[in-house]
Amino acid sequence: MNKPAIELIAFDADDTLWVNEPIYTEAQQACETILRPYLGQEVLHDRLYEFERKNLQIFGYGVKGFVLSMIETAIELSQGRVKGEEIQRIIDIGKEMLARPIEVLEGVRESLEALSKQYELMIITKGDLFDQESKIARSGLGDFFSKVEIVSEKTPQTYQEIVRRHHIDLRRFLMVGNSLKSDVLPLCEIGAHAVHIPFHTTWVHEQVAPQQLDGKQYWELNDIRELPGFLDVSLADTV
Amino acid sequence: MNKPAIELIAFDADDTLWVNEPIYTEAQQACETILRPYLGQEVLHDRLYEFERKNLQIFGYGVKGFVLSMIETAIELSQGRVKGEEIQRIIDIGKEMLARPIEVLEGVRESLEALSKQYELMIITKGDLFDQESKIARSGLGDFFSKVEIVSEKTPQTYQEIVRRHHIDLRRFLMVGNSLKSDVLPLCEIGAHAVHIPFHTTWVHEQVAPQQLDGKQYWELNDIRELPGFLDVSLADTV
Repeated sequence: MNKPAIELIAFDADDTLWVNEPIYTEAQQACETILRPYLGQEVLHDRLYEFERKNLQIFGYGVKGFVLSMIETAIELSQGRVKGEEIQRIIDIGKEMLARPIEVLEGVRESLEALSKQYELMIITKGDLFDQESKIARSGLGDFFSKVEIVSEKTPQTYQEIVRRHHIDLRRFLMVGNSLKSDVLPLCEIGAHAVHIPFHTTWVHEQVAPQQLDGKQYWELNDIRELPGFLDVSLADTV
Repeated sequence: MNKPAIELIAFDADDTLWVNEPIYTEAQQACETILRPYLGQEVLHDRLYEFERKNLQIFGYGVKGFVLSMIETAIELSQGRVKGEEIQRIIDIGKEMLARPIEVLEGVRESLEALSKQYELMIITKGDLFDQESKIARSGLGDFFSKVEIVSEKTPQTYQEIVRRHHIDLRRFLMVGNSLKSDVLPLCEIGAHAVHIPFHTTWVHEQVAPQQLDGKQYWELNDIRELPGFLDVSLADTV
């Protein structure tokens, strides 16, 4: 067999290897129940997202910033009437989010197992350092990956810096993830390969307008289990 | 001149390159003022540290976890009576901590400037990824450092992993920092050089018992400005 065209495959983690966004959605619903008496006609979701968006620049991504945004939303929507005990329940929801077992997505373990025989595997994930390290450990998938990069943002510069630091050959590098904004478009920009594997739900902050995809070259797969076969056939020709 | 014995110097950041612990102390005092009506005979400091210590395993280090611990302390000490508006003020204290200008310690810039001519410099700092990246950028010192590692804990394993990843020659590597627990003792354990430069105040969590230092070999300097001269003389002999 020839040397494979791709040598190193990097995976996003949240909603690519394991369930993430639904945990936030669920947490938000639990907060909505706690705050029901104060909500009136207000929709928690919109106000929360406003706080989250503003706070991203101060807190970055992750559960702790989410909880702080949720508390601020609760204070504003209740006009300061939210009770200490209710705030404590919101904090406890955050603590549960940070401690709950990792739900590895279907087909992930077997696909990583197959891929790890032929390729070097890497994780590139965005978020809170402490939380992401803990999730990788709890997922039981850590041993498949020879490199792990936890970053605060996924911009073209972020990827360029990673490529430089690890002496990665861009033409033999593939990024795989569920977010067009974070895992695909920045790679198109720096001239690397990217495979998009959509997850059934995407945080509004990660959504992209169709025109942003115009003229971009990347691959779309429905399921991570298709990746090994896809690499044997399609990407073998591109280098 | 001969090749210097030390090639790579890694610096801790908080309270080694810039002021950190006093910002937490100040924030705690501001919270104490807010919570004064509920405190009675209670001392905020002890109860807060209890929450912080318990929460470190869930939240990790950094301002966001500190704010969440502070809110939990406020709820408990006020028996749930703390007002929404008071919680908001605590969150605002956290936001100010994250946005305030970085106060680079005296002598740091000139020392880094001198050292960077002869040695490769690195930052190894513990804490929240987003916050630490922002502090490095705001400090204006980023360009002195060719490598930056932000880690969630500073154990001997953490340092061993960094040494492995960067192909660092342990005998030519020196760590410099203000915390015996995080910047000195783990280095003694893995057989690397360490210089302790004490800061005037140390968080109780970073304090070590005298017997932990028994038989450990490291150097103590009072001021970072002594480091260039010290390296020329003392450490030139140790390799």
